[in-house]
Amino acid sequence: MPYEFKITRRVEFSETDMAGIVHYSNFFRYMEAAEHAFFRSLGFSVVTRQVDPPVGWPRVHASCDYKQPLRFEDEFEVHMLVVEKKSKSLSYEFRFRKVSAPDDEIARGKLTVVCVTHQHGKMSATTIPQPLADQIEVAPKTLP
Amino acid sequence: MPYEFKITRRVEFSETDMAGIVHYSNFFRYMEAAEHAFFRSLGFSVVTRQVDPPVGWPRVHASCDYKQPLRFEDEFEVHMLVVEKKSKSLSYEFRFRKVSAPDDEIARGKLTVVCVTHQHGKMSATTIPQPLADQIEVAPKTLP
Amino acid sequence: MPYEFKITRRVEFSETDMAGIVHYSNFFRYMEAAEHAFFRSLGFSVVTRQVDPPVGWPRVHASCDYKQPLRFEDEFEVHMLVVEKKSKSLSYEFRFRKVSAPDDEIARGKLTVVCVTHQHGKMSATTIPQPLADQIEVAPKTLP
Amino acid sequence: MPYEFKITRRVEFSETDMAGIVHYSNFFRYMEAAEHAFFRSLGFSVVTRQVDPPVGWPRVHASCDYKQPLRFEDEFEVHMLVVEKKSKSLSYEFRFRKVSAPDDEIARGKLTVVCVTHQHGKMSATTIPQPLADQIEVAPKTLP
Repeated sequence: MPYEFKITRRVEFSETDMAGIVHYSNFFRYMEAAEHAFFRSLGFSVVTRQVDPPVGWPRVHASCDYKQPLRFEDEFEVHMLVVEKKSKSLSYEFRFRKVSAPDDEIARGKLTVVCVTHQHGKMSATTIPQPLADQIEVAPKTLP
Repeated sequence: MPYEFKITRRVEFSETDMAGIVHYSNFFRYMEAAEHAFFRSLGFSVVTRQVDPPVGWPRVHASCDYKQPLRFEDEFEVHMLVVEKKSKSLSYEFRFRKVSAPDDEIARGKLTVVCVTHQHGKMSATTIPQPLADQIEVAPKTLP
Repeated sequence: MPYEFKITRRVEFSETDMAGIVHYSNFFRYMEAAEHAFFRSLGFSVVTRQVDPPVGWPRVHASCDYKQPLRFEDEFEVHMLVVEKKSKSLSYEFRFRKVSAPDDEIARGKLTVVCVTHQHGKMSATTIPQPLADQIEVAPKTLP
Repeated sequence: MPYEFKITRRVEFSETDMAGIVHYSNFFRYMEAAEHAFFRSLGFSVVTRQVDPPVGWPRVHASCDYKQPLRFEDEFEVHMLVVEKKSKSLSYEFRFRKVSAPDDEIARGKLTVVCVTHQHGKMSATTIPQPLADQIEVAPKTLP
């Protein structure tokens, strides 16, 4: 069962700031892009209409520790790991590395998302749909 | 009747790029911010729920000519003018100036937006609601 | 001596996502906007050219806990507090509240920034310039 | 000699707005991404340090006509064509199509960029470096 996913992308000009590096807020967009690609790899969309009622995944916690900058046209990998799986929430860890220097971690992030349904205009936490939950495993703690 | 509106804002760090200036795509966010403040000044929101059925305003044309750059912490004015008013669409012109040098135009933009309703998941152009249309006038052509 | 700062802003359309709420990454832009306004209130820019050599402030840690969503046109306050002051770094806490419901916290964030100089293309941590350090105090722990 | 380039990408969640579609300003980021990939395909970066003195490419004109919306997870193609080549500037046209419906144009954009050098803190237009200019051709007008 899958507990990790990797995407590779290249820094775009519009993601840099006047310090010449990727603006720190964009690392959170990169994390989300990896999460959504992970969902697609399981046959789901994060806008989960394949289950009834449809569920959404608002973020309740996000964090990132920055070690080295990313610059324009750098190719980098976002390695996502499922680090916690509860009945109504998931937590992921994200490790950023440049393709040209895979031994140096650029940044490490974390996201916690909650599974919710919308009824009568109100959002409430709900159990992760079984067909999705069945496919997600927590990564082994011994992973380097 | 109003045909113009002005907002003043200050360039934020996250709006700059590695060239040290405001990324060109952000001028389109600035234009939209001026348009929405104009709507609010008339007692409406651009997410127009005050009329039945609610209407939206997708953009069908956007353009900008850039003359000088804007930099971090520059204070600038966006001067919006209504330049065309049809039964189902509006066109605006936007003039950007630094507060510290109001005689030099930084950029000039244009937006055309269409009034639409959503029915059965489909979007179709509709007449601008009367209470809003009654309040909007086209700016005189002689405006410098 | 100042240990806090507040800014008020209004959610812009371009800051929302298809879930109808402010995209979670934008809270980090809001935090930074508050930090930069705090610096300006002390007579400094975060692009600190008033000292020799000039210093910059890369982020080494960022986090946010989300409790309630912010929506288009919501007016909200970002209340920034200095929670740690070391010789070469500062940590801030940020409390988000809607102007219309000031008793409910929308989100709470944290940033740690390091003071750096650039020499020969390399970035290295440096002591916070005295004229700036002299003006910044740590907020009392008893603050509600 | 190359006069066109195509990239394919997928709409990300953070690129949508509360109307459930890609925010109109993001089409300008997509155009730029295609331009930069075109430069890379020629062995150059748009941050052109391979020539002496280095040159930059500020935008002087940008426009877009929007025909249909793009939604989350849509795969789309940006087809870039060089439509004008002057000694100091280039103009491109951009045609947006969904991969799933290649016969319908989603949007059509245009960019004009100027080749500049920076000297003593001032930016001035300069002739496009020969090694780059030699590789770029104007697309035939008969292209559908």
